[in-house]
Amino acid sequence: MGIITLTTDLGHKDFYQAALKGSLLSLLPAVRIVDISHDIAPFDLQQAAFIIKNSYHYFPKKTVHLIGVDSVYNKETRYLAMKYKGYYFIGADNGIFSLIFDDQPEEIVEISIIQDLKFLHFPLTDIFAKAACHLAKGGKLSEIGEHVDNLVEKKTLEPIVDDDSIRGRVIYIDSFQNVITNIHKELFTQVQRDRPFVLNFKRNETISHLSWHYNEVPEGEKLCLFGISNYLEIAINKGNASGLLGLKADEVVRIEFLNK
Amino acid sequence: MGIITLTTDLGHKDFYQAALKGSLLSLLPAVRIVDISHDIAPFDLQQAAFIIKNSYHYFPKKTVHLIGVDSVYNKETRYLAMKYKGYYFIGADNGIFSLIFDDQPEEIVEISIIQDLKFLHFPLTDIFAKAACHLAKGGKLSEIGEHVDNLVEKKTLEPIVDDDSIRGRVIYIDSFQNVITNIHKELFTQVQRDRPFVLNFKRNETISHLSWHYNEVPEGEKLCLFGISNYLEIAINKGNASGLLGLKADEVVRIEFLNK
Amino acid sequence: MGIITLTTDLGHKDFYQAALKGSLLSLLPAVRIVDISHDIAPFDLQQAAFIIKNSYHYFPKKTVHLIGVDSVYNKETRYLAMKYKGYYFIGADNGIFSLIFDDQPEEIVEISIIQDLKFLHFPLTDIFAKAACHLAKGGKLSEIGEHVDNLVEKKTLEPIVDDDSIRGRVIYIDSFQNVITNIHKELFTQVQRDRPFVLNFKRNETISHLSWHYNEVPEGEKLCLFGISNYLEIAINKGNASGLLGLKADEVVRIEFLNK
Repeated sequence: MGIITLTTDLGHKDFYQAALKGSLLSLLPAVRIVDISHDIAPFDLQQAAFIIKNSYHYFPKKTVHLIGVDSVYNKETRYLAMKYKGYYFIGADNGIFSLIFDDQPEEIVEISIIQDLKFLHFPLTDIFAKAACHLAKGGKLSEIGEHVDNLVEKKTLEPIVDDDSIRGRVIYIDSFQNVITNIHKELFTQVQRDRPFVLNFKRNETISHLSWHYNEVPEGEKLCLFGISNYLEIAINKGNASGLLGLKADEVVRIEFLNK
Repeated sequence: MGIITLTTDLGHKDFYQAALKGSLLSLLPAVRIVDISHDIAPFDLQQAAFIIKNSYHYFPKKTVHLIGVDSVYNKETRYLAMKYKGYYFIGADNGIFSLIFDDQPEEIVEISIIQDLKFLHFPLTDIFAKAACHLAKGGKLSEIGEHVDNLVEKKTLEPIVDDDSIRGRVIYIDSFQNVITNIHKELFTQVQRDRPFVLNFKRNETISHLSWHYNEVPEGEKLCLFGISNYLEIAINKGNASGLLGLKADEVVRIEFLNK
Repeated sequence: MGIITLTTDLGHKDFYQAALKGSLLSLLPAVRIVDISHDIAPFDLQQAAFIIKNSYHYFPKKTVHLIGVDSVYNKETRYLAMKYKGYYFIGADNGIFSLIFDDQPEEIVEISIIQDLKFLHFPLTDIFAKAACHLAKGGKLSEIGEHVDNLVEKKTLEPIVDDDSIRGRVIYIDSFQNVITNIHKELFTQVQRDRPFVLNFKRNETISHLSWHYNEVPEGEKLCLFGISNYLEIAINKGNASGLLGLKADEVVRIEFLNK
């Protein structure tokens, strides 16, 4: 009866998260609140976008995804609500939406339910909570703001592709220390055209077999696979791939496809 | 249909929190449970009080706030339930309530639903859970215990004030590393009487402008403002104020008001 | 109206936990989801079993306990659902169930609702979520798989007992740094037969009084008691027992009972 998910950099130690949840429950007592993550690194839009891009679609349609990262007021900030593939999203127009979506949202409004944003101390409990509860109750986007057409664009680094190779980068290290790159399964398949390949990273490391499961190789050995996110992932079966292979965010990886 | 919030020092690793939630759901299957925080430092009443004081009022009236900090049984401990500004609070009479409330609660009872407290191993799942569910269901305070008049007093360090200055202390560092003092906005405004001021801290640091928003100064620069908590806060725009300015809990800060 | 608890090693940083919760809500919008813990150390069955064994029974009967630890697909893995003492449990047949249960479950099935497990990337959102929602809705075990009789056995180290002594081990350090052993209250009482005892650990440490509460000794002093888990626990009143006494997991402790 109205689900609102939360993705913020508020952490778990302070009262900020509780203030947000209390505000939502005060506005809409029947709301279901689900934490996606409150452990986004402060102001880290790339990380927040990666988390939301890979989880929003598991929820029922019409779920409202509230994004509270880098959302404090400044003169240029617009607060937006939008509909994308049947889901609602609320957040500051700081570039995060362009990092989450592959296409243009169906509808975008600039939220105008607060008179003077300048005196807003905590947008999450004021403008975001109100807009989220309005949408979770079944309200329309057009009732909380004017339509806008464009979003602030912030582009992820895309892989560099030619006929026989893809050059990508590490974009995320998960809590199992698996190393996730920006090379999507679709891109890989399209360039591969059934050819064998060699994945190169660091100075001399190579992997030339694509696994389905972490435990297809013996414990402690490295592998690559398309994980839950559908991005190419470098892992060690029951081991710390990031640490043992020295792979951190931004590191370059390179795939060469071999012609017969 | 009955909200119970939890503020404890139980952490997230053990089974204690789950035991508490399971107990609440067993007693009142329709209850809504909201975590305020389980990351209170063990036995830290000041921190717990700060968190609750700043968040309890965001929730709908009649919400039951259960406080599980320093609540293990000993001979002198009274377990109390009370009503304050339309909200219910449950916890051990260890001084925490005097740190949360500005005035006297409307009604206080000593919970007497357990025969022999001496054999209680985990007050949270027994006496607290039962009392909380009773109140969340709409039950009366007088049905779970005898009225009492007084609370154990534990006073926070109040700022030292004269006509032209306020001397306060750092009481909390939040997870963004913002530095929060015990100087409330109301006190500041009352002493300031529209005069300019200089805030002094550490050996030579000064701030003489009061901001509304963190990003009113360039990134990396210091500022002061009355944050979400309405206490004077020293911050660095997108930076670690506590670390960079060397401000820890208990550090003294001093405001001088300037006569024209 | 259907409670599902979650115990996993997924942590709080990634999108995995959100994917699981979104899947559950998509399948059963009215489900109540309760986190037992997502902070199990990766692949640590002993820790997961200790947490679940000590918390599952606080929940209402028919609660579905979903265990997502060491559950990635491999050729030998069976995914099981079962009923034990009126509760449902779902997880991989990796030995964890033998660590949780004292007796044989009432009914066990091998879940067969997915055609080809080989292509499963994230069993939690697929097979586990579907089975859990089926059971939370009131569905039968026999509708999601074939009966099986046996579970993979993995035995905890049991204490070594003779007429006048019990030799046990530390199995868990909680977040208060209390030290929990594998000596159950029932075993202790049975061997003790009302005799005085001396608990020995490390080179020269002894405790010969059994406390009921942490604060029966002065602050900073050591004690032993049967805590919430009913296992013998070594603690320091308001102090860090594990650190100060040098007691880590697997350390041996020995109880001698004294004949008069």
